[in-house]
Amino acid sequence: MADEVILLDFWPSPFGVRARIALREKGVEFEYREENLREKSPLLLQMNPVHKKIPVLIHNGKPVCESMNVVQYIDEVWSDKNPLLPSDPYQRAQARFWVDFIDTKVYEPADKIWSTKGEVQEKAKKEYIEALKILESELGNKPYFGGDNFGFVDIAMTGYYMWFEASEKCGNFSIEPECPTLMASAKRCLQRDSVVNSVPDPEKIVEFAFKIRKIYCV
Amino acid sequence: MADEVILLDFWPSPFGVRARIALREKGVEFEYREENLREKSPLLLQMNPVHKKIPVLIHNGKPVCESMNVVQYIDEVWSDKNPLLPSDPYQRAQARFWVDFIDTKVYEPADKIWSTKGEVQEKAKKEYIEALKILESELGNKPYFGGDNFGFVDIAMTGYYMWFEASEKCGNFSIEPECPTLMASAKRCLQRDSVVNSVPDPEKIVEFAFKIRKIYCV
Repeated sequence: MADEVILLDFWPSPFGVRARIALREKGVEFEYREENLREKSPLLLQMNPVHKKIPVLIHNGKPVCESMNVVQYIDEVWSDKNPLLPSDPYQRAQARFWVDFIDTKVYEPADKIWSTKGEVQEKAKKEYIEALKILESELGNKPYFGGDNFGFVDIAMTGYYMWFEASEKCGNFSIEPECPTLMASAKRCLQRDSVVNSVPDPEKIVEFAFKIRKIYCV
Repeated sequence: MADEVILLDFWPSPFGVRARIALREKGVEFEYREENLREKSPLLLQMNPVHKKIPVLIHNGKPVCESMNVVQYIDEVWSDKNPLLPSDPYQRAQARFWVDFIDTKVYEPADKIWSTKGEVQEKAKKEYIEALKILESELGNKPYFGGDNFGFVDIAMTGYYMWFEASEKCGNFSIEPECPTLMASAKRCLQRDSVVNSVPDPEKIVEFAFKIRKIYCV
């Protein structure tokens, strides 16, 4: 029996896109189902009753929730192609460390850049750049966080890379002069087939960001 | 050459204790080094320059940071004894999901119970019990979250189990009537050799909690 793989997702989500990219890196066929987050589907509520959030990967009827948990699950189930996590325990621990860093130290200011203004937004921009600089220093002169290969940490960051333009426009600042090598890696990631096929048009994200910004920053 | 394993830790830490327990489950000899968190050692600052937090596991000179990342590293390196994560990808994803739940939905209110008072504390107590009830429902009638075996999620929770008495005394409430089967599992966990040898005397934690509470709740 062929695998049935369904992804509950929301197009501009930096978390949802991680699951899309991981599935495409592995060449897994899946059914994409767009969620309306203002009126969540009964299936989403049933499959993720704890957090009620996308992405949810439903594999042969069983749900996996939380984006990087989904990516790790995909990596373990479809282990024959494009490994996303390294096999060495120390390198795996390092990759998990940086993903956790991204999910706390990048997520929090990134979220505030589009949803706040004034001093709060200025502080968020400073924290965002600080976090990106730490990542740039970790990246060093490697093409990807995964070394020569696009991997776990790169997938985690690509959700933010696809929002870079929207973040810059909402915050009226530039990332590239502060983090040139991170930006070069971002461009490399955004050109991959798995990513091109998963990421929306940046202009659409900018438009979406300003639309929700209006609601949060009245 | 024998492995050199050093743990930078702080005795009442619900995070540090996770690493201690995992090492003892695996029968790994290690050197425990107590940190003074008001005056962190040069070694801690060197080994965890990003977060500057305990626990840090230093294995043959190389640091691993973030408690559950440390536990997973230990599980992968010393894989021959007492597996902590299941081998099935779906069950692994479920275990990681619940650990993430604990590190967000249990951590946040638990932290506020000893560090706040009045309405904020009341709200935290309510959220704490709600989160524990969700965990109790996930536990079901299994002896451990790991099923018949003490595992990854149990280790994550044991840091909170050892603080239960302090939380109850700081918040003037009782956990057992609300979550009787979770409490039964907690008691089971707290009796394991690996845990008995890792967890401080509950009275000492209560004393510590009231000492720091005085600083936060003036």
